[in-house]
Amino acid sequence: MIKSWITISPDSDFSIHNIPFGIFSIQGDQPRMGTAIGDQVLDISLLASKGLIDLEPSIAASSILNPFIALGKEKTNAIRQRLISLLSETNDELQKRADVDSFFHSQKDVQMHLPVQIGDYTDFYSSIQHATNVGIMFRDPANALLPNWKHIPVGYHGRASSIVVSGTDFHRPMGQIKPVETEPPIYAPSRRMDFELEVAFIVSKETSLGDTISTKDAEEYIFGLTLFNDLSARDIQQWEYVPLGPFLGKNFASIMSPWVVTMEALEEFRVSGEVQEPNVLPYLEFTGNKNYDINLEVSITTPNGDENIVCESNFKYMYWNMCQQLAHHTVNGCNVRVGDVMASGTISGSQPHEFGSMLELAWKGTKPLTMKDGTTRVFLNDLDRCTIKGYAQRGEVRVGFGECSTVVLPAKQ
Amino acid sequence: MIKSWITISPDSDFSIHNIPFGIFSIQGDQPRMGTAIGDQVLDISLLASKGLIDLEPSIAASSILNPFIALGKEKTNAIRQRLISLLSETNDELQKRADVDSFFHSQKDVQMHLPVQIGDYTDFYSSIQHATNVGIMFRDPANALLPNWKHIPVGYHGRASSIVVSGTDFHRPMGQIKPVETEPPIYAPSRRMDFELEVAFIVSKETSLGDTISTKDAEEYIFGLTLFNDLSARDIQQWEYVPLGPFLGKNFASIMSPWVVTMEALEEFRVSGEVQEPNVLPYLEFTGNKNYDINLEVSITTPNGDENIVCESNFKYMYWNMCQQLAHHTVNGCNVRVGDVMASGTISGSQPHEFGSMLELAWKGTKPLTMKDGTTRVFLNDLDRCTIKGYAQRGEVRVGFGECSTVVLPAKQ
Repeated sequence: MIKSWITISPDSDFSIHNIPFGIFSIQGDQPRMGTAIGDQVLDISLLASKGLIDLEPSIAASSILNPFIALGKEKTNAIRQRLISLLSETNDELQKRADVDSFFHSQKDVQMHLPVQIGDYTDFYSSIQHATNVGIMFRDPANALLPNWKHIPVGYHGRASSIVVSGTDFHRPMGQIKPVETEPPIYAPSRRMDFELEVAFIVSKETSLGDTISTKDAEEYIFGLTLFNDLSARDIQQWEYVPLGPFLGKNFASIMSPWVVTMEALEEFRVSGEVQEPNVLPYLEFTGNKNYDINLEVSITTPNGDENIVCESNFKYMYWNMCQQLAHHTVNGCNVRVGDVMASGTISGSQPHEFGSMLELAWKGTKPLTMKDGTTRVFLNDLDRCTIKGYAQRGEVRVGFGECSTVVLPAKQ
Repeated sequence: MIKSWITISPDSDFSIHNIPFGIFSIQGDQPRMGTAIGDQVLDISLLASKGLIDLEPSIAASSILNPFIALGKEKTNAIRQRLISLLSETNDELQKRADVDSFFHSQKDVQMHLPVQIGDYTDFYSSIQHATNVGIMFRDPANALLPNWKHIPVGYHGRASSIVVSGTDFHRPMGQIKPVETEPPIYAPSRRMDFELEVAFIVSKETSLGDTISTKDAEEYIFGLTLFNDLSARDIQQWEYVPLGPFLGKNFASIMSPWVVTMEALEEFRVSGEVQEPNVLPYLEFTGNKNYDINLEVSITTPNGDENIVCESNFKYMYWNMCQQLAHHTVNGCNVRVGDVMASGTISGSQPHEFGSMLELAWKGTKPLTMKDGTTRVFLNDLDRCTIKGYAQRGEVRVGFGECSTVVLPAKQ
């Protein structure tokens, strides 16, 4: 098995098998491309400018990954393989250089940036357990799934401008809520601030208006994955969402992890998904393993610093896979662009501790979660930190995502 | 009253009182900024490079208006006033130049481009007659408006990538439809292809995440207006939209007119809107006239070339005005960016010929419209051209938008 000359902890998300892509800066200098290895960031921009990788220096020096991703998978995969080679113990091109230290920075010293300029953001609703839980809570337990759910990978357009990188905190949103159902709405801070555990994929290739992407070709259009927290103000959402869907209940902030883990790094973690019944329409049929076994967890860090793991789920629980999502999204000719973000929707497993939102974990407020400090939560409190982590593992091979973390700041009133 | 040395027909949309901004090119050369005057385009990029206007030539040569709009209203208004001055009969700086002809092109010789790079696209639902009509047709005639409608300027996120400029045709979308309600969905071309008569505004100033925009300040954030056709496949929409709103029923194509008419050009067409009852929450209160008297019409040109005017409406019929829309959109801290597009939703008046969609005009298929060629329509047919026009007029002062036009091409099967 390939090994690196860098010291990497066995439980690091950033083994030599990973080599994700991201945008970093140090002390306010120019954001640029890097990869994560162990607890270090390797400066891809410097590698390019020194001629150690075959990548146009202006692309490596860009403050967004879009120009890099637009080079196409053949090229970006070759760059990733070259980075693996430069970091492997049998290669001394980088490790023996006198200036080797200048290429590396401690992850704790760098600032990470949103990795891509997002053209459009789409959020799906593809976990059957999540859709079922919501249906039981808000509609009919006997007919929890809506009639279209098993025919369509249901999705909606989200707001791109308010997607921010992990580490960006946000203010609890103000808005219209209805604490008393029979009374008119009031203007107040949301009282039901929730996270949604999601995974997002980033589009790698553009299409023209009128084009479609088949499930067979869809993987060509998926560059890689990040963790994603589709923060939701449930009370704002509840009052506004009929008939046109979620709007201000979602668009105050969504959080993305900074490192884009490539599909190639995740290749060996493919698994099959749930059998889909009834049969899907032909344009949604697919062959092969299209789900991924990625462990996911959510923690709430209370203001005293205690970390409380509140959810352990897995990306493999998706009913609709990414190839189906992309085929559906484009079946009407809708065009996609490099850097578009498409998120999974809340990923819940079948067990109560696998539910991917506070709404489900505390079952609409009826089952409060007790924190280590003795306080309880049915939704997030001000100053709570919510952190999503995720990793895939087979034997000693570990490929992880780092963190997707944010703090709920008090409402601006 | 100010007059131009250019010959302008009295019924031209592009009088000297208008001076909209757009992006044009000729015979495949570089897209750049221009304004429309009579049946001509005046090359703003050339004016800038020759030093006739105080505008950075690289901004005038941009293929999008975003850098220009980002200069701020003080600057963009000054440029517009300078253009009016250069075009007025009392000014001979431009008209007496030996090379004057090189600044002008016939509108029929130029290609117009999408005027802005759109960060996010939001579509509202702000016409009370439209919302009422939809409620009567699909829900309860006695309670046509949903409970939230008079409290919230209801809106949703649309797809930015598929907004294209007038003159771009599109293919009838394929998708899941349910011709027989009790049967499973089928994959087929949409059978209910509709237009939606809308007006869109373009955001002129960015905010940061967490900021709000008051109704009082909102006009600072609105650069100008275009006509907008939010094309809708009603059968796809019907099957998909519960619970997360419209998606593939809308995102196959939306059409925008190329000339952005500034709010300053529309200043004298302000009118009051309908009295809002019940009272809105304080963050939605406003003073002054925030509606605009802009005549709107929609025509269907049948394949034989006959133009059939099917709708005559007016932008003044909006229940929720743009300042309220912007205040609501940002009340939760959602950030906006220069070039964001926010559309009105279908604008219907109270009379049947003022309804802004085929769904309403033909009342869900029950009242077919007869065309001049004897054929009937309940929705759009393949090869129909749908054109929106709009203008405001007071005495001899006319300010118009040109056209927002597209042809329904047959589905790609």
